Amino acid sequence: MDEKKLNALREKYGNAAGSDVFDRKFKLVADKLFKADGSRSLPYGGMPTLLDLKHQEDFSGLDIAVVGVPMDLGVTNRTGARFGPRAIRGMERIGPYNHALEIAPDTVCRIADIGDVPFRSRYSLEKSVEDIEAHFRRIIEAGARPLAIGGDHSISYPVLKAIAARHGPVAMVHVDAHCDTSGEYDGSKFHHGAPFRMALLDGLIDPDKCIQVGIRGSAEFLWELSYEAGMTVIHAEEFAEMGVAAVIGKARNVVGDGPVYVTFDVDGLDPAFAPGTGTPEVGGLTPREAQALLRGLAGLNVIGGDLVEVAPQYDTTTNTVQVGAQMAFEIMCLMALDLS
Amino acid sequence: MDEKKLNALREKYGNAAGSDVFDRKFKLVADKLFKADGSRSLPYGGMPTLLDLKHQEDFSGLDIAVVGVPMDLGVTNRTGARFGPRAIRGMERIGPYNHALEIAPDTVCRIADIGDVPFRSRYSLEKSVEDIEAHFRRIIEAGARPLAIGGDHSISYPVLKAIAARHGPVAMVHVDAHCDTSGEYDGSKFHHGAPFRMALLDGLIDPDKCIQVGIRGSAEFLWELSYEAGMTVIHAEEFAEMGVAAVIGKARNVVGDGPVYVTFDVDGLDPAFAPGTGTPEVGGLTPREAQALLRGLAGLNVIGGDLVEVAPQYDTTTNTVQVGAQMAFEIMCLMALDLS
Amino acid sequence: MDEKKLNALREKYGNAAGSDVFDRKFKLVADKLFKADGSRSLPYGGMPTLLDLKHQEDFSGLDIAVVGVPMDLGVTNRTGARFGPRAIRGMERIGPYNHALEIAPDTVCRIADIGDVPFRSRYSLEKSVEDIEAHFRRIIEAGARPLAIGGDHSISYPVLKAIAARHGPVAMVHVDAHCDTSGEYDGSKFHHGAPFRMALLDGLIDPDKCIQVGIRGSAEFLWELSYEAGMTVIHAEEFAEMGVAAVIGKARNVVGDGPVYVTFDVDGLDPAFAPGTGTPEVGGLTPREAQALLRGLAGLNVIGGDLVEVAPQYDTTTNTVQVGAQMAFEIMCLMALDLS
Amino acid sequence: MDEKKLNALREKYGNAAGSDVFDRKFKLVADKLFKADGSRSLPYGGMPTLLDLKHQEDFSGLDIAVVGVPMDLGVTNRTGARFGPRAIRGMERIGPYNHALEIAPDTVCRIADIGDVPFRSRYSLEKSVEDIEAHFRRIIEAGARPLAIGGDHSISYPVLKAIAARHGPVAMVHVDAHCDTSGEYDGSKFHHGAPFRMALLDGLIDPDKCIQVGIRGSAEFLWELSYEAGMTVIHAEEFAEMGVAAVIGKARNVVGDGPVYVTFDVDGLDPAFAPGTGTPEVGGLTPREAQALLRGLAGLNVIGGDLVEVAPQYDTTTNTVQVGAQMAFEIMCLMALDLS
Amino acid sequence: MDEKKLNALREKYGNAAGSDVFDRKFKLVADKLFKADGSRSLPYGGMPTLLDLKHQEDFSGLDIAVVGVPMDLGVTNRTGARFGPRAIRGMERIGPYNHALEIAPDTVCRIADIGDVPFRSRYSLEKSVEDIEAHFRRIIEAGARPLAIGGDHSISYPVLKAIAARHGPVAMVHVDAHCDTSGEYDGSKFHHGAPFRMALLDGLIDPDKCIQVGIRGSAEFLWELSYEAGMTVIHAEEFAEMGVAAVIGKARNVVGDGPVYVTFDVDGLDPAFAPGTGTPEVGGLTPREAQALLRGLAGLNVIGGDLVEVAPQYDTTTNTVQVGAQMAFEIMCLMALDLS
Amino acid sequence: MDEKKLNALREKYGNAAGSDVFDRKFKLVADKLFKADGSRSLPYGGMPTLLDLKHQEDFSGLDIAVVGVPMDLGVTNRTGARFGPRAIRGMERIGPYNHALEIAPDTVCRIADIGDVPFRSRYSLEKSVEDIEAHFRRIIEAGARPLAIGGDHSISYPVLKAIAARHGPVAMVHVDAHCDTSGEYDGSKFHHGAPFRMALLDGLIDPDKCIQVGIRGSAEFLWELSYEAGMTVIHAEEFAEMGVAAVIGKARNVVGDGPVYVTFDVDGLDPAFAPGTGTPEVGGLTPREAQALLRGLAGLNVIGGDLVEVAPQYDTTTNTVQVGAQMAFEIMCLMALDLS
Repeated sequence: MDEKKLNALREKYGNAAGSDVFDRKFKLVADKLFKADGSRSLPYGGMPTLLDLKHQEDFSGLDIAVVGVPMDLGVTNRTGARFGPRAIRGMERIGPYNHALEIAPDTVCRIADIGDVPFRSRYSLEKSVEDIEAHFRRIIEAGARPLAIGGDHSISYPVLKAIAARHGPVAMVHVDAHCDTSGEYDGSKFHHGAPFRMALLDGLIDPDKCIQVGIRGSAEFLWELSYEAGMTVIHAEEFAEMGVAAVIGKARNVVGDGPVYVTFDVDGLDPAFAPGTGTPEVGGLTPREAQALLRGLAGLNVIGGDLVEVAPQYDTTTNTVQVGAQMAFEIMCLMALDLS
Repeated sequence: MDEKKLNALREKYGNAAGSDVFDRKFKLVADKLFKADGSRSLPYGGMPTLLDLKHQEDFSGLDIAVVGVPMDLGVTNRTGARFGPRAIRGMERIGPYNHALEIAPDTVCRIADIGDVPFRSRYSLEKSVEDIEAHFRRIIEAGARPLAIGGDHSISYPVLKAIAARHGPVAMVHVDAHCDTSGEYDGSKFHHGAPFRMALLDGLIDPDKCIQVGIRGSAEFLWELSYEAGMTVIHAEEFAEMGVAAVIGKARNVVGDGPVYVTFDVDGLDPAFAPGTGTPEVGGLTPREAQALLRGLAGLNVIGGDLVEVAPQYDTTTNTVQVGAQMAFEIMCLMALDLS
Repeated sequence: MDEKKLNALREKYGNAAGSDVFDRKFKLVADKLFKADGSRSLPYGGMPTLLDLKHQEDFSGLDIAVVGVPMDLGVTNRTGARFGPRAIRGMERIGPYNHALEIAPDTVCRIADIGDVPFRSRYSLEKSVEDIEAHFRRIIEAGARPLAIGGDHSISYPVLKAIAARHGPVAMVHVDAHCDTSGEYDGSKFHHGAPFRMALLDGLIDPDKCIQVGIRGSAEFLWELSYEAGMTVIHAEEFAEMGVAAVIGKARNVVGDGPVYVTFDVDGLDPAFAPGTGTPEVGGLTPREAQALLRGLAGLNVIGGDLVEVAPQYDTTTNTVQVGAQMAFEIMCLMALDLS
Repeated sequence: MDEKKLNALREKYGNAAGSDVFDRKFKLVADKLFKADGSRSLPYGGMPTLLDLKHQEDFSGLDIAVVGVPMDLGVTNRTGARFGPRAIRGMERIGPYNHALEIAPDTVCRIADIGDVPFRSRYSLEKSVEDIEAHFRRIIEAGARPLAIGGDHSISYPVLKAIAARHGPVAMVHVDAHCDTSGEYDGSKFHHGAPFRMALLDGLIDPDKCIQVGIRGSAEFLWELSYEAGMTVIHAEEFAEMGVAAVIGKARNVVGDGPVYVTFDVDGLDPAFAPGTGTPEVGGLTPREAQALLRGLAGLNVIGGDLVEVAPQYDTTTNTVQVGAQMAFEIMCLMALDLS
Repeated sequence: MDEKKLNALREKYGNAAGSDVFDRKFKLVADKLFKADGSRSLPYGGMPTLLDLKHQEDFSGLDIAVVGVPMDLGVTNRTGARFGPRAIRGMERIGPYNHALEIAPDTVCRIADIGDVPFRSRYSLEKSVEDIEAHFRRIIEAGARPLAIGGDHSISYPVLKAIAARHGPVAMVHVDAHCDTSGEYDGSKFHHGAPFRMALLDGLIDPDKCIQVGIRGSAEFLWELSYEAGMTVIHAEEFAEMGVAAVIGKARNVVGDGPVYVTFDVDGLDPAFAPGTGTPEVGGLTPREAQALLRGLAGLNVIGGDLVEVAPQYDTTTNTVQVGAQMAFEIMCLMALDLS
Repeated sequence: MDEKKLNALREKYGNAAGSDVFDRKFKLVADKLFKADGSRSLPYGGMPTLLDLKHQEDFSGLDIAVVGVPMDLGVTNRTGARFGPRAIRGMERIGPYNHALEIAPDTVCRIADIGDVPFRSRYSLEKSVEDIEAHFRRIIEAGARPLAIGGDHSISYPVLKAIAARHGPVAMVHVDAHCDTSGEYDGSKFHHGAPFRMALLDGLIDPDKCIQVGIRGSAEFLWELSYEAGMTVIHAEEFAEMGVAAVIGKARNVVGDGPVYVTFDVDGLDPAFAPGTGTPEVGGLTPREAQALLRGLAGLNVIGGDLVEVAPQYDTTTNTVQVGAQMAFEIMCLMALDLS
């Protein structure tokens, strides 16, 4: 580099504090992080919130409402997803900027962590399903797009009931190790292996516009409805063979231009990346693949979403909490892009 | 038990919901936990706060202000206490009732988690000391008794500066593995082994009214000031020999009737009970002993306190976070007793 | 030591294999561990069973039946006790000999791990309560004394229903951090904080003959029934003050000579010894104290018991699983002593 | 989706319990999991066995015998593989169905967990090698194909001695970070870096029909025999360059149509996926690659196999145990496919 | 394989100890590991050193000096990298041979672990920066190429000052999640997000010859200097799209033939592979990709390097320590190749 | 405190660096820690050594030689003690001063970490026993008192052979959960349950002068030799009943004035304090009790000792490593006291 250019850089950057030279877009972002005295808020300081958003119980006036759903009564194996929202609130350094999508949602929308769904009972899966639906109906009626932080995957059914009440049957992008279109067992039809059977039969999702990605494991025989109803299923090994670009193309083709719900079960990722979950399955997606897939949905009309099945007890490194929070952030960016 | 009595119990308790039969005192407590519909708030739900208190940044009008001090620039060995407040906020099931002291502080005082000390820099121990003092001065001027949640033990010096500005030299009960009356080293007099040397020489604490309990380890030679100034030192092995009742007697005798500051370094406990700390020392107190000691201080004029050195990275079981939060709760109960 | 004695020892022990010199009582024990070729079974080898017992689904003809109850639908906070039986089966080196009680249960009784309670549903606390009662009725009718391995503490109620159907209201020794005599909340009366309220009101236990040991924490206000009904409550701090001998005296005095049920919640121990549990409470018993207490019950007519609330997800060292298994072994020894 | 189709789906699936609509093949699978009352066996309940198979010490009449080999006397660095079989028995949710190979081995063959190899001594690597050979000879003579669950990799040599006694020199697919064709060191030729040197020189495997996949690390200079004898070696970085399809092609080409032994050292995977092993090597295969490779062997005459080097002490998330169990399941599927 | 060839192999290898048949190159390697009596040094035995090198405080006469820099005062979030050198010293089995590069550095150069930088204070980032520069100047003046083991990334700035004092502005290959070209914040310009801004503006590195690989996360807006100055930035998702061969080509093209500094921040890897670090970012490189990239630099004039940000507290499996040590070993191999 | 005294303290301490005011004894200690420029050596910096001693392979001229014995071939259950010396070398902050015994061994004796016993093979327990004896003979012949850091407890037998060669049959203080006087099993008489049977029968220890403290667990029937030979056995529960003062009295009475060997198995402590060990037993000593016991031996002629059975794999908090190192330090202090 020639001396002249170097000196120009020195002049511009040499004595500048961190944010002095930002252009307008970045200035907005920096203003979220830097305080007037040039100091930055501590990532490990302050009150813990979902995705480092401000906390505000009143969700009127919000564009996007991020809400905790600490309920895991629907699990079939390892419990613990009830601690998901709390763990994600404790995770530092999520957002505010998405360099791939070039957006800082918090600078273009009104977004908040609105706290948790109020539950009547920690002992009743049925009542919890009702409580979730009621709360999400209120959020949607207030005009906000909901982003649910589970909890186990059974929460998607009542969220979709609230979604469909506004939007009719929606398209869906579903990342998971399991199709979750099983029927009743152990006397319950609400368990975490069944939300999309009910959503489908209730007409909340349009199977022709649904894609399920990352599917694998030993319960394939439970998900015949996915195939019979015409949902598009991309197994984990097919994902690897197709490549991420082809999967994105397929996904965009399937879901179309209408309202889309994005549901991300952290067990869609390989257990090496997300050990803290209740029904881990060997051979899953990498976070890089999952991020590429989600980012590939940019421009779609994402009207709601969820991130589920983070169970921190098995997450000895905090990796699962972080990757779960990051995926929720990616979904929030899709919503914000559509809003901006 | 005779049938008649059993039937009377059946009548009273048989169909009652959890809180129906509480007497007045317990009713107040129960009202903190039970909602109108008979459900209880989830210990793992909602926004994480210190000691499950309500969060309120504005501390005017509070009797007791619990405040996070996420700063660990003063440590000599293992870092991580900067994550102490966040970890303690995430701990479920602390309080609201202390059965040994028969008090639920939250029902007799106005108490809140007022958030964290605002720091100008995560790189400057000196500036942090100033920021802490300034923030605690504001709290005390507003009329609240401060309870600091560290952070490393270097925070006690600026807190005591704010305390003494109001109360003059105070008495002190200090539970710790180390006397923390060392001098400067590595060019810093503010490190976490030194707060009480400075507090003493600055006239913030009265050494005649100070007791240091649980002392041990291999740095005894650094704490000659404790002895020369007349502080009372109870080593961990002396604690075991004396028994807890005698230690309580000694402590009450030393501190007297005036204003007392209670500072609890979680490394006062044996590492088996509190592994998540920066300078663990073999052979410490048990939590049962420490609780008995603190409860034995009931009735004293506790005008401030702190709980420090919880470093969650080594706390694989969450035990340290819990026992640290519990000790902070015990100190808060002492304050509330004095206020009620 | 003089040469002559040493030579005698050399002659006796010098060329002997491990078990050659055992006297009759120890020979029986050794025969459990040593194989014909002088080798020992590997502690980490073979099929995992409860307390290293033989596995046998058919419980007819047994004196003591040890049974897994992998159910944790009754918890109020951290889940995971459903993995308790599996974790305890995986623990090596429990028994066969109790040197303090001088008994090897397996050599004087017919004992087996009879597998788990068959549950109709992992989603229904109510059905699970029924399934447990039905299974334990079958065990007791077949003539075996049951030792239940939970699972959460809600299992004690249906076990006691089966016990009382045979024995009438029984005495009870209860080690726990919590009295577990709460009322209904969140719409459920079967949760793990309530089994002994129901047992008491149903006449399954005689409150005059019940002692609850290790009680502490912040929910004292929920347990007024314990006091009103006349159960003897020894708080953790009272235990420390009284000393173990006095507690044993008190316990024997309370329970008397009739049939006694022994229920051990692992959270009765301090979290340092048993971190792997759902509602840990600071300030509990030590395992040495708990063993002394249980051993102090030798000679009583222990007709059933349980070990509950081992939740291995938080048990990073395997300590909780081991100490839980050991306490179950101590209870089994009490049963065997009474049978032999 | 049109209303008519949706209604047809509702009619078929709406009130159906989980397994009602299964076609014949899936019905067989479902019958393994669902009980008569529509409930499913709990993944975390019951007696722990290898790959959730039934346990049966008598292996006569079996098609495939899965056997634990808890022996790690051959390791060079971190110990702990002796706990491999116990840990794998404790893992929930392995099988019963392989969706990629479309087989549920347990529905087409007679398979059982036959317990562990009986060892004469935990102190003698030499005797252990003899004991393993003797036990596997009995299994093979009884007509079962053996699937060994180690234990360290030194167990493959005696297993291959038993295999070759029946089949003559066999082909081998070997996934590992190390070629394991080293010579004697520290006075032992039986260590876990040497089994295939001995197998080769003893004529148990045909080097022309052997492929070693995933090789890497810093001990390449110890494995000159692999090259000189003509074994095909695919290093980890070559695997990445070739792609999985080419590796499968190469493997099928090398091993041919005769009897094949499949040996899977879990350290063939990258440590991120399998940290719980004794000699981890940076830069390994992903589970998705390994599964693809194994599944690519479908149709071969797999007459035996092993899964080795799972050492659970370093496996803080249970990932290694799960991925090890899954790879064993994949090998079992290959055997079952060949048998069906 | 025909019998004749097999017999030849038997003759050559059958009775040979491990190292008897090595050719000359491998003999040198083997001599590092095997002792005269045929035994090998224990990987877990002896004094712990960096990369299993000999320890020697005097660095005169060395070709490569590996030096610990236990300093983490520059971190923005999770602390702990001060324990990096100690943890890496404790890791077993790194080197001595690199099969891909076909070099055993220790057999062709004089290399040692020369201990740690002597620091004047653990409380002063500014003084530490000075101490590091001074120590590395001495190393370089003595003729050795330095390989620094951090410590946080702020150490690269003073190391580069010492490097540039000898070599002038150098080229740089930088693997990281972050560009680390931020400006001052919190009043410090030396934090770990800023070393390359200072290095660039001080003329220590030539931005035209710098490539930054693996970049991602939410702080892109802080690194505008990288772009404006003309550094080549390859984001993590671009790496995946380009493929490793293209990245290597790009890197070689950018850095050219002159002296190159290689700096490896372990958070360049995905957190699944390297959880033990202070600012993990989802979606990073795999170790296999990183190794391929580094090996692709073979032949360049690597005159110095560092491996930073290993913070073992979050490294529950030891994976991060191992992969960090391995990457340092790869860099050392590049230096040795250039020297040999 | 009056102003005058405070001012005197201010004058003396106010501007003093840490070590300026030390009296002569403490000055010696401080000189070990403080450098000329007033900075202190970093606890986490530098080359890791046993008990933070200097490392010196040549043991001629030493008073006390601390030596690693990384060998665990004698274990019966969980392996891993071979990593004990490495883990203890990595532990920071052990010594240099013992406030209870008022001694800093390193200031009154010549002490060093002399590295590890050189082993011929990691596969032969028998050869290892020979190698240990040979190495300790050399140490003792050179005039140093040996302090062995295991490794499993089988190492005590060869160490005692070397000790007795110099001193004849010695007295012994033995802290452990197990008497370790079992006979041969699994074909080996050298396992870790047997060293003191062999030592006794070989005349290396005088049973009349041996005390075994902390004994418990389920293998009592294996240790009949302890009783028959007249060793004094204090069970863990007897320790609690007697109190530590009585145990000290008993111990001093038993061992007398002659040469004493002190052997400390970390499983003598309760697993809560020392989970990282191979055969943990519920109900053990606390570290405070163990320290009191060891310190109560002050003045005895301690001519050798060992600290064994630290197996760091289960030591998730580093507590076991620390408490093991501390106990070794206590033994070293006893030696130094006797030498000074």
